[in-house]
Amino acid sequence: MMQPTRIGIVGLGTVGAGTVNVLRRNGDEIARRAGREVHVCSAAVRDPGKLRLCEIAGIELVTDPLEVANDSRVDIVLELMGGEEPARSVVLTAIANGKHVVTANKALIAVHGNEIFHAAQEYGVTVAFEAAVAGGISIIKAIREGLAGNRIESMAGIINGTSNYILSGMRDEGCGFSEKLADAQAMGYAEADPTFDIEGVDAAHKLTILGAIAFGIPLQFDNVYTEGISALALDDIMYAEELGFRIKHLGIAKRTHVGIELRVHPCLLPRNHLLSHVEGVMNAIYVKGDAVGPTLHYGAGAGAEPTASAVVADVVDVVRTLTTDPGNRVPHLAFQPNAISDLPILPAAEIESAYYLRMSAVNRPGVLADVTRILGDLNISIEAILQKGSGAQESVLPVILLTQTTVEHRIDEALRQLAELPTIENEISRIRVEALD
Amino acid sequence: MMQPTRIGIVGLGTVGAGTVNVLRRNGDEIARRAGREVHVCSAAVRDPGKLRLCEIAGIELVTDPLEVANDSRVDIVLELMGGEEPARSVVLTAIANGKHVVTANKALIAVHGNEIFHAAQEYGVTVAFEAAVAGGISIIKAIREGLAGNRIESMAGIINGTSNYILSGMRDEGCGFSEKLADAQAMGYAEADPTFDIEGVDAAHKLTILGAIAFGIPLQFDNVYTEGISALALDDIMYAEELGFRIKHLGIAKRTHVGIELRVHPCLLPRNHLLSHVEGVMNAIYVKGDAVGPTLHYGAGAGAEPTASAVVADVVDVVRTLTTDPGNRVPHLAFQPNAISDLPILPAAEIESAYYLRMSAVNRPGVLADVTRILGDLNISIEAILQKGSGAQESVLPVILLTQTTVEHRIDEALRQLAELPTIENEISRIRVEALD
Repeated sequence: MMQPTRIGIVGLGTVGAGTVNVLRRNGDEIARRAGREVHVCSAAVRDPGKLRLCEIAGIELVTDPLEVANDSRVDIVLELMGGEEPARSVVLTAIANGKHVVTANKALIAVHGNEIFHAAQEYGVTVAFEAAVAGGISIIKAIREGLAGNRIESMAGIINGTSNYILSGMRDEGCGFSEKLADAQAMGYAEADPTFDIEGVDAAHKLTILGAIAFGIPLQFDNVYTEGISALALDDIMYAEELGFRIKHLGIAKRTHVGIELRVHPCLLPRNHLLSHVEGVMNAIYVKGDAVGPTLHYGAGAGAEPTASAVVADVVDVVRTLTTDPGNRVPHLAFQPNAISDLPILPAAEIESAYYLRMSAVNRPGVLADVTRILGDLNISIEAILQKGSGAQESVLPVILLTQTTVEHRIDEALRQLAELPTIENEISRIRVEALD
Repeated sequence: MMQPTRIGIVGLGTVGAGTVNVLRRNGDEIARRAGREVHVCSAAVRDPGKLRLCEIAGIELVTDPLEVANDSRVDIVLELMGGEEPARSVVLTAIANGKHVVTANKALIAVHGNEIFHAAQEYGVTVAFEAAVAGGISIIKAIREGLAGNRIESMAGIINGTSNYILSGMRDEGCGFSEKLADAQAMGYAEADPTFDIEGVDAAHKLTILGAIAFGIPLQFDNVYTEGISALALDDIMYAEELGFRIKHLGIAKRTHVGIELRVHPCLLPRNHLLSHVEGVMNAIYVKGDAVGPTLHYGAGAGAEPTASAVVADVVDVVRTLTTDPGNRVPHLAFQPNAISDLPILPAAEIESAYYLRMSAVNRPGVLADVTRILGDLNISIEAILQKGSGAQESVLPVILLTQTTVEHRIDEALRQLAELPTIENEISRIRVEALD
């Protein structure tokens, strides 16, 4: 058996402790696979006196994260602290010291990945980040390696478990967004400040990474169109079901003939699509390649041990390439650094989609004629129209419309004109419809 | 850019031609990922004059497969001819010549894999076989690498598209097995001699491979309990639906405290399980690891381009390890050759499962009492009992039973005793029920 590989961990919170537990519990299994043992020799924590969720015997605890990045005994630094700083400095220091890095930090990679991978390239080390996207699902490996023969056409993923838990619960229990969010917080599925999850930022971080490795483009978080679930009404979830759809919060990356779409928002999906059956906090990514066709990758997107599963897999991968010359390793962003393309990211107004629209209309002759004329004049074809209830004249009734595929700026214009109709009250709900054929 | 990698292909049928097409069409994309070009320089075919499904310009055609295995220009041999011989000789010759091998041949690996990997180990080359299991789904990579930190607990897969197509069709169209088999043959989803698919042999080949890499045990095709779908009645499919289940043909590998279960047979699955929504010729494998929890891997299990997708991914993987010393490569069977375990494979009589039983009973007082007494005396608990129809006294009616989990030899004994009851006519259908929790 070869020399043990020595690990230094920065951050012993949920994921860090989960990683130590998995490395200890499955040490034999991991050594049988990797051909050598993996030892955790040091860990940086904020408070060394705090009770830990893992056994720390044999692990030297320090308080300065940089101490781990500078520790000459350490072969691989696991950055499991999260956030942009000091994580970025720790990772760059480890790289400059010739150490390999494994990170679970999606914000770090989405926002600072280009800089980090450039440095890794320069120093000939690997920065592995499987755990940064969709927890235990080995989606980075699947796209970078398993689908290496494909031209990736599109992907659509349920990549934020909190949002999926809330949407599943609203539908099942018929409750509103705020009520289900409070439940998610009580269950530990949403943070005290849930903004990153419910406003789509977390999903946008992950989609940034998935888009880069799918299409060979740079990481560009700022170009992701991002919309969360906080504005979704229970009514829309129920009408969608009635129409044979299910509302899911998706990250979508798609190659079109004019550029790349990168967008995160709620979607209507056909109810018989596999993604529609992904419930609760589970994650799943649907990937289409030109050769393989559709594939689905499903599993836990968060949690101590599922995330640890991805971290440990990365450790084993890195261990295997310790003696490989860097040019022969899997490139960080799937494509060779000199082969990254500058395909444009389409602005939201240019994306193509079908749409679900819900408006409150005064029940008066000619209302639907006004609505359909506006859409017709903008060349938007109507797939279905549904008027709910049968109230008296002048009462306000919901009207639901499904359009055929069109360009988003036409819908924007339609919404502007519809809002001006004296018979349309309140705001109009607009949700994109994805066929995922 | 590094030197192009030179490929020799043995077999230019559906998969071989698909591979050439993908390598040509996505040559740029593949080179951007792999950091070098992949050239097909020669191919062995039975009839060089035959019309091909791919462009053969630039490829030297030969008729002797061994010529490719001995061709000094070739770095990697793709064995895409199928069957046990001469595929085995071709692969062993290539290995002895120090060439890496990529194969899509499940029978070859399941039956001769131990010999082949031993030879590969001896000569320091890689034999990659992602395409041998579940076509385009990168399940070998997911288990060997993506889940490397896990102790795998169980897996259950829809790994024979032909069987799944027939079962989906019987249920949807309410037709019998023979009718749907004929349709599958007309669609090109089943061969003229469909035995390997419908009797479970093809699935058993794949399960042999999956079981080995999940648990670190040798390949042992002969120890897989194998049952196909040819004896399934439409009645059972419909009663299963009525009870909230769906019948799927599964390959199951499970770790228990007394040994490993390796079995291929039809199963009742809860209808809301993701695997129940895998329809037609699609494949999916549900894998549970102790750290990651449940995962699902879905995609096309056969077909020219999905299989080519896996073959090309293997080529890229092999190319990346050309300069890696063999000890650092991913071990063929996931675990290091000196760490393969001799866990026993349980005989079918020792497996634990719940059961669906359907019998034809004469409608006479005391019949159900006789049936339930036999089960009770054998310590088999009944989960549900369903008597269909309400015929006259002495008419023959179907009785459907769901048992709780028990050991299979008790069910075998129960079936023997039930068959002796004067009120039970015809054969009793027995189908295992998998909760897959």
